[in-house]
Amino acid sequence: MRIAELSRASGVSTATIKYYIREGLLPSGLLISSNQARYTEDHVHRLRLIRALLEQGGLTVSRIRSIVAALDDADGTFDPGTMTADGPYAGPLSPLTADPRTVVTVRSLAERRGWNAPVDGPEFAAVVELLDILCELGQERFAARLDDYAEAAERVAAVDEEVLRSCDDSRSRAEGLVVGTVLGDSLLSALRRLARTGRSTPPVPAFVTSGSSGTRS
Amino acid sequence: MRIAELSRASGVSTATIKYYIREGLLPSGLLISSNQARYTEDHVHRLRLIRALLEQGGLTVSRIRSIVAALDDADGTFDPGTMTADGPYAGPLSPLTADPRTVVTVRSLAERRGWNAPVDGPEFAAVVELLDILCELGQERFAARLDDYAEAAERVAAVDEEVLRSCDDSRSRAEGLVVGTVLGDSLLSALRRLARTGRSTPPVPAFVTSGSSGTRS
Repeated sequence: MRIAELSRASGVSTATIKYYIREGLLPSGLLISSNQARYTEDHVHRLRLIRALLEQGGLTVSRIRSIVAALDDADGTFDPGTMTADGPYAGPLSPLTADPRTVVTVRSLAERRGWNAPVDGPEFAAVVELLDILCELGQERFAARLDDYAEAAERVAAVDEEVLRSCDDSRSRAEGLVVGTVLGDSLLSALRRLARTGRSTPPVPAFVTSGSSGTRS
Repeated sequence: MRIAELSRASGVSTATIKYYIREGLLPSGLLISSNQARYTEDHVHRLRLIRALLEQGGLTVSRIRSIVAALDDADGTFDPGTMTADGPYAGPLSPLTADPRTVVTVRSLAERRGWNAPVDGPEFAAVVELLDILCELGQERFAARLDDYAEAAERVAAVDEEVLRSCDDSRSRAEGLVVGTVLGDSLLSALRRLARTGRSTPPVPAFVTSGSSGTRS
């Protein structure tokens, strides 16, 4: 199909399609003359993936570039390691400022749960930093429930694993890992809010005083 | 303290502090002369909150502006509804294009779990849209495990609720709701990755073939 048809099929403007090609997110079309290229269903699919990672996943163009580069890797392998620093957590890691007690807390959590995570890995550093920040902000109560949050996260990870194992080939598994991880975070976040607002008893009744009606934005 | 001391105490540059004041994220200091203002520990705390929401939470300046405005609301009430559309999910909601079958799926999920969520609310629309996008991207397998993800999310919501109930006053509860919701999403996301990478058995062994060693970025 021509670029105009690709634009219609994907709902992405031709200017944006050209931008994604320049930025290395989308492969070029097959040139059939000096100023005409042909695109395929693979381009439509890739555009959907890019839009989902950008809009629902909140990833940056440069993160998506490295993800699609990994997906396009010729030998069909995909290193889950490239997904580790993804998701909402995108802050700079500062292991030097980590509270040593928090490091011990997270290390013993990992031991208790039988997680073999490398203590110098980005996931470990992210958990340590987030706990430190929660405490710094006076929200130790959330940090104190680490085990409960870890148990919920472990259940999610187990489901992820089952889903990924059920994929037929390494290609669909690689894309499943990317999409499932990034959109899965968004889905969990949305479900958490749905579960909270949806409880028959309002979760935090003290918030809703007689003066607050009509302030819902 | 002066702005230079506030900058040292918070690790935020004076130019950025002034920017936050102009943008309405941080209250002005108390003017003691035409070109000098004094700041308090409350400013240090607020700066920490802003940085955490920006860097670890990935929120935009305009989202943070509306959150701190709600926190500063004179009557001390805070509507949890203002937190509903937050988190990694920030894409445009398009209820008109929602697959009616997905709407039915999510509605029956909410019924089964006893969630009283309004079907025209943003959380409901977010779940529907994310499921539709997962299917559009060929990841129906993740969408099919909705019940498992919902159960994990419900456990998290229950812990959230217990933590918030234990707060002493509405002010700390309001800030707990903001921080716990936004950083809690990041924490869950980091724990999910930690649980996944940390399992003794590699989660997706087929990814890691002999050719992939050394490609970890």
